[in-house]
Amino acid sequence: MRNIRIVIEYDGTCYSGWQIQKGQRTIQGEIAGAIRKVTGERVTIYGSGRTDSGVHAEGQAANFHTKSKISAERIPHALNAHLSDDIVIKSAEDVAADFHSRFHVLSKTYRYVIWQSPVPSALKRNFSHHLKSPLNIEAMRDGARALMGSNDYRAFCGKARSKENTVRTIFSIRIDKSGNLVTITVNGNGFLYNMVRAIAGTLVEVGLAKIPPERVAEIVKSKDRRKAGPTLPARGLTLVYVEYSNPT
Amino acid sequence: MRNIRIVIEYDGTCYSGWQIQKGQRTIQGEIAGAIRKVTGERVTIYGSGRTDSGVHAEGQAANFHTKSKISAERIPHALNAHLSDDIVIKSAEDVAADFHSRFHVLSKTYRYVIWQSPVPSALKRNFSHHLKSPLNIEAMRDGARALMGSNDYRAFCGKARSKENTVRTIFSIRIDKSGNLVTITVNGNGFLYNMVRAIAGTLVEVGLAKIPPERVAEIVKSKDRRKAGPTLPARGLTLVYVEYSNPT
Repeated sequence: MRNIRIVIEYDGTCYSGWQIQKGQRTIQGEIAGAIRKVTGERVTIYGSGRTDSGVHAEGQAANFHTKSKISAERIPHALNAHLSDDIVIKSAEDVAADFHSRFHVLSKTYRYVIWQSPVPSALKRNFSHHLKSPLNIEAMRDGARALMGSNDYRAFCGKARSKENTVRTIFSIRIDKSGNLVTITVNGNGFLYNMVRAIAGTLVEVGLAKIPPERVAEIVKSKDRRKAGPTLPARGLTLVYVEYSNPT
Repeated sequence: MRNIRIVIEYDGTCYSGWQIQKGQRTIQGEIAGAIRKVTGERVTIYGSGRTDSGVHAEGQAANFHTKSKISAERIPHALNAHLSDDIVIKSAEDVAADFHSRFHVLSKTYRYVIWQSPVPSALKRNFSHHLKSPLNIEAMRDGARALMGSNDYRAFCGKARSKENTVRTIFSIRIDKSGNLVTITVNGNGFLYNMVRAIAGTLVEVGLAKIPPERVAEIVKSKDRRKAGPTLPARGLTLVYVEYSNPT
């Protein structure tokens, strides 16, 4: 059996997220359908992780096992021919038999985009969260410092089970402003459920002066979801890149 | 009667272009409907010009006459409440009684976006034209020089009537590359039907070495539509800004 790793870009607007669910249109389900049409096989697709309904990806990673003899180089084109144009297989390669897209992740990069303007944006509406009030970017950068490093991120997790290991490492958080767009780019070794959207929501509260930057460290320590800011809407979130030890 | 000028952003993907047409969903038609709901009036909306089906706008301009007493400041919010989220009124202001959005244009800026990559983009699919082959940006810039200035642009017009004045002035053409995105930004005093898309199509042929840059001047002189490059798809085109003598 071959083990194929693929990199996928998708516009999540019209999908019920990554994971296959009966009666729902999902990214994983659409790709499984395309692989079946190309190879005749019903394969399991292992993603680097799930993305929620409305979340986008520039570089989601996944792998699947196949007996097909189609060259890795031809796989993107072959699969794309059976996918609607809001899902695109960007690349494919043969990887080691024991490679697993979820277990072997070194880091993931997510981007959260805010459209900061008195009026919403018609062109960015599916790819950003609209915020009318101006943000203090420097305060957000100050607040972000307390979110970097290895921490228990329970305060930023939508639904952590009590025994779940909620320690993760965030390597970097970058906040940029260009015109009306404010982007929060987070790179870490892994993320809890809704963690990036809760981090973005907390940093926005800091930017709006509702939370002082110096309180962010206390929020982390509290491990209390109610202390952190809200989970911002899915549409502003994009999974940018999944890093593995053998770079694609 | 008041004369109100509005600036409009829209995602043209789901519309049959700007101009009102019976039985079609159009930008002008949707805005007229919203104005009727807010003021109770059936007004004529004068746009700076038409945009084709699938063409977008960051800053289309239009004006209409009204007896309504609603403050200009409140108009965007009032109209946006009756528009779907792919059309947004960005601003509104009272202008002189004789102001006309089409006749008083000083310049218009259009942007044509190309996604240059072996694979298409799921996220940019509605806002760019996909091109697999690499483009020689320097050659495109050389070719663009012959398109600037005051010229008869008949060779770049989709359907010029024989007596139509096809002389226009292009003030600037800028070509930028950032990652896989190549953008052609054109500023001029006016544009013929499909002119920007034909200019983009010609410059792409130059970038692909199908037309030598030095031949562009001859193409202009020929006034022959068949000599220029193809009209590229609407989805890559955005009307960025319409300039008037009293800046908004």
